[in-house]
Amino acid sequence: MKNSVKVFSPGTVSNVGSGYDIMGFAFDGPGDILEIIIDRSGEIIIENRSDSDIPCDENNVIHPALRALLSQADKEYGARVIIHRKISPGSGIGSSAASSAGAVFGANALLGMPFNDLELIDFALQGEKLVSGQAHADNVAPCIMGGFTLVRSYKPLDVISIPYPADLYCSVVHPALQLKTSESRSLVKSSVATSTAVQQTGNASALIAGLILNDKKLIARSVVDLIAEPARKHLIPYYDEIKAAAISKGALAFNISGSGPSVFAFTDSQEKAENISEHISGTLLLKGIKSMRYASAISGKGVRII
Amino acid sequence: MKNSVKVFSPGTVSNVGSGYDIMGFAFDGPGDILEIIIDRSGEIIIENRSDSDIPCDENNVIHPALRALLSQADKEYGARVIIHRKISPGSGIGSSAASSAGAVFGANALLGMPFNDLELIDFALQGEKLVSGQAHADNVAPCIMGGFTLVRSYKPLDVISIPYPADLYCSVVHPALQLKTSESRSLVKSSVATSTAVQQTGNASALIAGLILNDKKLIARSVVDLIAEPARKHLIPYYDEIKAAAISKGALAFNISGSGPSVFAFTDSQEKAENISEHISGTLLLKGIKSMRYASAISGKGVRII
Repeated sequence: MKNSVKVFSPGTVSNVGSGYDIMGFAFDGPGDILEIIIDRSGEIIIENRSDSDIPCDENNVIHPALRALLSQADKEYGARVIIHRKISPGSGIGSSAASSAGAVFGANALLGMPFNDLELIDFALQGEKLVSGQAHADNVAPCIMGGFTLVRSYKPLDVISIPYPADLYCSVVHPALQLKTSESRSLVKSSVATSTAVQQTGNASALIAGLILNDKKLIARSVVDLIAEPARKHLIPYYDEIKAAAISKGALAFNISGSGPSVFAFTDSQEKAENISEHISGTLLLKGIKSMRYASAISGKGVRII
Repeated sequence: MKNSVKVFSPGTVSNVGSGYDIMGFAFDGPGDILEIIIDRSGEIIIENRSDSDIPCDENNVIHPALRALLSQADKEYGARVIIHRKISPGSGIGSSAASSAGAVFGANALLGMPFNDLELIDFALQGEKLVSGQAHADNVAPCIMGGFTLVRSYKPLDVISIPYPADLYCSVVHPALQLKTSESRSLVKSSVATSTAVQQTGNASALIAGLILNDKKLIARSVVDLIAEPARKHLIPYYDEIKAAAISKGALAFNISGSGPSVFAFTDSQEKAENISEHISGTLLLKGIKSMRYASAISGKGVRII
């Protein structure tokens, strides 16, 4: 049995406007690169060789995720994980999901694939629980399955792969500031007006229809978030301005990526996606805020061996 | 110009479980039969030749609906509407929607089709407002457009035709009791936990995916209503028992039709749909409750000239 594997685990955009806490997609660009080694030590050791300042002890999401998987496989198993590259924590593009998904995916490959995607998502969720207090699969699911995913239910866990237009492109911009997922979550109210819930349901359902039916105008109309965006957007500097900047360059839709501060836009060509990313970054830079920017199609590939 | 037309306006199931206030579909069976005559009287006169005891004055939904249409067309227009057959009011299968949709559809046909489906829905909504205090399009939309519809938004009005499996059948049973939509509405709380809204959004989005992707197992898992069903089901006698009866006969899903007391089930053959309808009706009859029952595919045909 091979006992070492290297994986690339992609960045993901979750929430996607109306799909608050249930939708997400993978995109090309940023990602974790992890090396996973399975041994018989019974212990999990994490070594950080990336630029990011992250904990290597039990506060790293890899710990609970791998522990959940290994304890189901065989309690004698241990693992060493070397983090070669890391998506910046607190970026809003699924940094913690990339780590936990990457680790369980790699371990599963080394053990001869005993677990399916849904089980891997369930293990990785133990990592998400550590970060946000609650287990949310909206980044973990697309990270493991690739493409665009919908979490229908947690009990039992039910994740659906949603077909999407091949020419649906996204711009993702990560302003150089860090938001803690748990803090960003606490801004969202614990209850909403039923009429608001109904509108959110309408937009989310319509977004799914737009994706499957390849109706980009419908996608554009449906990326509307009445729950998280109004509560969180003030955390992102010049949010309304960069949203307007993106739309002015042909973005079909624009919203917060995950719990921010990253933002994303949908558009219909790679060229426009690059222009929109550049324009958002440029608008931020004029305000003195640096950013990382990405432009790609929605990526059908999730975490993979490299 | 022809000045008289007769229309059949079908019954519709709205809410459809997770699609509370936004989804609905047309089915074959019950319907209004209306005769519409356009004249230059400037007045609207309604004549009831049906079995149902319904008002013919301004408290009939046809009044505000037709008034809205005629005043946009030409203020001099008037109309006479003869109600030949009427879905029982307070049945939960879109009785008021059938009347208002039928009337505006007929008038539009006589006037040379100046208005599109969306405009007709908007006119018919004036009738719905009269009944339920609020304008809800989840019955009116499938009644006018046929098939399965999703109301994404009211401002502006945005209704999407959702493709559905050709072999998706429904059983609809109307227990012989009457519920006022406005009373049934008042039972639904004005706010919900955000976590409940998120679950409802997940189920509704998954239902749309299941319909378009022809995934009946997904449809079955997704007809789950956390908002209206818990608040309303006690209005329907023996609800849990008839739900169990339907599932035991092969129903994929079961829920309240509209605001009740009618109930509906989905299944995958006409034969099963008939068995399920019969079994629900039989279960109710054993309790001393008579009912009307229907079984059909989701109907692609909405209101039509006969």
